[in-house]
Amino acid sequence: TPESAERTAVPGVATGLAVTGAGGDVLFIEATSMEGEPGLTLTGQLGDVMKESAHIALSYLRSHGRELGLDPNALAARRIHLHVPAGAVPKDGPSAGITMVTALASLASGRPVRSDIGMTGEVTLAGRVLPIGGVKQKLLAAHRAGLSDVIIPARNEPDLDDLPEEVRAGLRIHPLADVADVLRIALEPAAAEVPAAPHLAAV
Amino acid sequence: TPESAERTAVPGVATGLAVTGAGGDVLFIEATSMEGEPGLTLTGQLGDVMKESAHIALSYLRSHGRELGLDPNALAARRIHLHVPAGAVPKDGPSAGITMVTALASLASGRPVRSDIGMTGEVTLAGRVLPIGGVKQKLLAAHRAGLSDVIIPARNEPDLDDLPEEVRAGLRIHPLADVADVLRIALEPAAAEVPAAPHLAAV
Amino acid sequence: TPESAERTAVPGVATGLAVTGAGGDVLFIEATSMEGEPGLTLTGQLGDVMKESAHIALSYLRSHGRELGLDPNALAARRIHLHVPAGAVPKDGPSAGITMVTALASLASGRPVRSDIGMTGEVTLAGRVLPIGGVKQKLLAAHRAGLSDVIIPARNEPDLDDLPEEVRAGLRIHPLADVADVLRIALEPAAAEVPAAPHLAAV
Amino acid sequence: TPESAERTAVPGVATGLAVTGAGGDVLFIEATSMEGEPGLTLTGQLGDVMKESAHIALSYLRSHGRELGLDPNALAARRIHLHVPAGAVPKDGPSAGITMVTALASLASGRPVRSDIGMTGEVTLAGRVLPIGGVKQKLLAAHRAGLSDVIIPARNEPDLDDLPEEVRAGLRIHPLADVADVLRIALEPAAAEVPAAPHLAAV
Amino acid sequence: TPESAERTAVPGVATGLAVTGAGGDVLFIEATSMEGEPGLTLTGQLGDVMKESAHIALSYLRSHGRELGLDPNALAARRIHLHVPAGAVPKDGPSAGITMVTALASLASGRPVRSDIGMTGEVTLAGRVLPIGGVKQKLLAAHRAGLSDVIIPARNEPDLDDLPEEVRAGLRIHPLADVADVLRIALEPAAAEVPAAPHLAAV
Amino acid sequence: TPESAERTAVPGVATGLAVTGAGGDVLFIEATSMEGEPGLTLTGQLGDVMKESAHIALSYLRSHGRELGLDPNALAARRIHLHVPAGAVPKDGPSAGITMVTALASLASGRPVRSDIGMTGEVTLAGRVLPIGGVKQKLLAAHRAGLSDVIIPARNEPDLDDLPEEVRAGLRIHPLADVADVLRIALEPAAAEVPAAPHLAAV
Ligand SMILES: [Ca+2]
Ligand SMILES: [Ca+2]
Ligand SMILES: [Ca+2]
Ligand SMILES: [Ca+2]
Ligand SMILES: [Ca+2]
Ligand SMILES: [Ca+2]
Ligand SMILES: [Ca+2]
Ligand SMILES: [Ca+2]
Ligand SMILES: [Ca+2]
Ligand SMILES: [Ca+2]
Ligand SMILES: [Ca+2]
Ligand SMILES: [Ca+2]
Repeated sequence: TPESAERTAVPGVATGLAVTGAGGDVLFIEATSMEGEPGLTLTGQLGDVMKESAHIALSYLRSHGRELGLDPNALAARRIHLHVPAGAVPKDGPSAGITMVTALASLASGRPVRSDIGMTGEVTLAGRVLPIGGVKQKLLAAHRAGLSDVIIPARNEPDLDDLPEEVRAGLRIHPLADVADVLRIALEPAAAEVPAAPHLAAV
Repeated sequence: TPESAERTAVPGVATGLAVTGAGGDVLFIEATSMEGEPGLTLTGQLGDVMKESAHIALSYLRSHGRELGLDPNALAARRIHLHVPAGAVPKDGPSAGITMVTALASLASGRPVRSDIGMTGEVTLAGRVLPIGGVKQKLLAAHRAGLSDVIIPARNEPDLDDLPEEVRAGLRIHPLADVADVLRIALEPAAAEVPAAPHLAAV
Repeated sequence: TPESAERTAVPGVATGLAVTGAGGDVLFIEATSMEGEPGLTLTGQLGDVMKESAHIALSYLRSHGRELGLDPNALAARRIHLHVPAGAVPKDGPSAGITMVTALASLASGRPVRSDIGMTGEVTLAGRVLPIGGVKQKLLAAHRAGLSDVIIPARNEPDLDDLPEEVRAGLRIHPLADVADVLRIALEPAAAEVPAAPHLAAV
Repeated sequence: TPESAERTAVPGVATGLAVTGAGGDVLFIEATSMEGEPGLTLTGQLGDVMKESAHIALSYLRSHGRELGLDPNALAARRIHLHVPAGAVPKDGPSAGITMVTALASLASGRPVRSDIGMTGEVTLAGRVLPIGGVKQKLLAAHRAGLSDVIIPARNEPDLDDLPEEVRAGLRIHPLADVADVLRIALEPAAAEVPAAPHLAAV
Repeated sequence: TPESAERTAVPGVATGLAVTGAGGDVLFIEATSMEGEPGLTLTGQLGDVMKESAHIALSYLRSHGRELGLDPNALAARRIHLHVPAGAVPKDGPSAGITMVTALASLASGRPVRSDIGMTGEVTLAGRVLPIGGVKQKLLAAHRAGLSDVIIPARNEPDLDDLPEEVRAGLRIHPLADVADVLRIALEPAAAEVPAAPHLAAV
Repeated sequence: TPESAERTAVPGVATGLAVTGAGGDVLFIEATSMEGEPGLTLTGQLGDVMKESAHIALSYLRSHGRELGLDPNALAARRIHLHVPAGAVPKDGPSAGITMVTALASLASGRPVRSDIGMTGEVTLAGRVLPIGGVKQKLLAAHRAGLSDVIIPARNEPDLDDLPEEVRAGLRIHPLADVADVLRIALEPAAAEVPAAPHLAAV
């Protein structure tokens, strides 16, 4: 899928799945960090529940980072900014939880997220993946967007019965209960080398 | 009960009992800590009264920790995050108070909470256990979820008369007035050894 | 009275008197302190006026502590948490002012509050005791609860005419105008020795 | 007047004049200070305009303190708490401005406010005294309360025509335009010696 | 004009022009500074737009102070308080912008503002003077108040056609586009000597 | 265009395009910086979405500054103030995103923004340029204002079909997908020398 490939090319961006007024859709979670007062800046017109998801995702990684092999300072000592485009569309709900964990873990590790994988699922502070709604619409959207793999909560497996055979055949579906498994599947190995960006002062 | 066993396997998670629109239910209080500005992050769409319960629980443990044998720095010098899944369900009321004290004491001591025990009761800043409502529905839910032991406030003992004989026979019920007694019953001995978690960087 | 004896056994807890929908009632003000950012945490669903009372009580003690013989650091250098159970019942009004001063002075001095004494009265920043409403209902409640002594504002003395003779005969009533006199009457001498609490780690 | 004598006996308390639903009344502004984060705590159910008056009063004294002979650290390096009893009565308006300046200057200098003087007037940041309403009702209240002197804004002098001859003859009225003149008239010389307060620990 | 002469006698006070329910009026912007946490305290019941004007005025001076010859620490290292009397009258709108810049520059430089000059105009962060409304009413008020000079935005020059010939002849009108020009015209040379204020302690 | 030439003469000001009640219009984004607590002050009656755009713009530059050749301390260690005149007009929406990035990059680099170029486009935290609405009205406004170049989001190219031939011929239109390309086109080379500003103290 050209769009998610382009959007997830840098570490810190993960592909989520959402239910909108017009069926399901793909969305992107973008995370970046900078020097400054440690903490979390959230943008994208996020509702209360979705803001809490971001705090849960960050706390999970900060308290379990060491056992996940993440640099503890990458998330604790820097300012984190997490944004969900498009900026004028209000968004809410807990189902972007595992996507937020993935974007933040990608940022902290420098490992990009696989561009062919989408995901949906609530995350708890202890790292459990809880069921969400709209599985059918989300998987139709993932298929439409050309994704090859989709992660869903283990307890949503029964919802797969509603899926058209063609969609089910065209997607590798991963029903998972532990967010550590999500990270194992979704993150690419660390990039060997980052291509040099054009230097503004040199223009 | 498979679910509470899985959920309370790590220190910092305790099993509570709640009244919902559909009768009683089991809920989990998850607590974790991390380096950062000391204080309390609360998530799970908690109402005012429930947020105050969390502050009471933390203050009780911070001011009585030494006499309870807890490491004073475990709760005072770190950022605490307490979450109550599911993240989109609004929750309120004081009856999760002793469950919050238990989850935080488990976190601070490294001793897991017994997975076969559920509890309900308001806690005061001085550690008294005050009565709550919905005892019958909560104990039916505990029985349904396969728990063996339930802690209730001593002043709720008269409510046990309303309980079906079968449920009462199937549960060990502990009516308590002091939260120090709750901790004595609910916390397991410290784990001898924590199993190593898979290392993310090694995937 | 068994309940107030149990509740005020530790320093930092004082017995107040309130008017509720169902007549008068006894309430408890619990205060504790801990290391942390100096300041005041307030819980118990307190309204604006009652929260201001707590700040007035604390400021009075912090600016007059030395002349009252209190350790100046006990209230200035620690985080104070003041809670008024029951946690789900909204409370408001200025009449708990002197009870708050007493609970905080008890906390700061380590001297328990007498368990047989209840009190009601607004306090000013300069330590004056101002009149309040509901004297008759509050004194009936104090009598019902088995208290032997009650402190009321001096300017409320005329309200005692409305009291049944039996109640008036059964209570020692102290009409006071200065909160320093409240402390002189309400605080017990410092405890010679604190009984050791059970050690959690030893369970 | 016995009440204002008792209330203003300590430095930091000044007598103001207010218009209430039931005509004019005397009110007291109480100020105290303590170690802690510099700034202003305001209580007494003050409205927005009255809270702003307190900030104007403090800023005036902090930026003009040196030329007024005040210890610059007395107001800048300590926490200031300003309270206006009774605590449950909502209060608003700018006319307590000069009373607030007087209470704070009394606190900073240790010089008590004269107990026989009441005052009303808006203050500006540059120390001008601006006119206020309700002069007649306020002066009737001052007379009723037994005060001998009253300070009013110079631009309110024409309002004195409405005053009953008897009241006008019974009060020394000071129409002033500069708050420095208010302080010159209202503050007593510094007390030679503060009587020792009863020591709580010695009870 | 006696009033503005008296009000602007000290550095930090500038004369503005406003439209009120009763036509135009003169208002005063008072600024002062003190030791403390750097930042801006705003009083005078200012609305959102007017509060933003004050922040724009301060930021303009802080980022352009050096090129304007102002002591960089005068505004950056001290607490600034800006007040617009009368304190109970709500005020809003952007047209006090250049008056705020002038009051703050006067404060920072110690140079008083000319007492015979009034001004109106929105200011931008880059120091442009943008047009405002109510020019006719404001200039009538300036004339009535006995001011000799008035500064207006250059883009408001066409509004002068509506002015009565007599008013236009009686005022020197300065249409300006850059706030640096406003300061050049409005500030007096630095006072050679400040007259000693009466010393409070010596009273 | 005289106005945008005058407005964008100093680094930190960029020309945006907006849709208003009366068709399209040109607006200016002004940014400046000063010593002080790092962070972002926003003025101009900006709505929630537009405030978030400013935070996204700043975070993008702070986390990608090094690869863009910007001094990392220029935006991280200073207080940034971003203002959008006129100050009383409420503004909202994400389409000023790339204009905000350009103004801030101009401020950080000292390179002025080209005065003949206008722009519109949402920016994401990863630097993607997302489509916006009102392209036709905005380009008509740019043409009317005499601009020679306009930057639009690549995904808005289809909207150019609606443009009158004359307007399309009179504007160089740059459809872009990456905000780094926006900066390459919009920023002038660093000024060789800044003309000395008149020194206020010398007036
Ligand atoms: Ca909500
Ligand atoms: Ca979602
Ligand atoms: Ca509530
Ligand atoms: Ca509950
Ligand atoms: Ca209220
Ligand atoms: Ca009460
Ligand atoms: Ca008043
Ligand atoms: Ca108001
Ligand atoms: Ca507004
Ligand atoms: Ca105005
Ligand atoms: Ca909004
Ligand atoms: Ca726009």
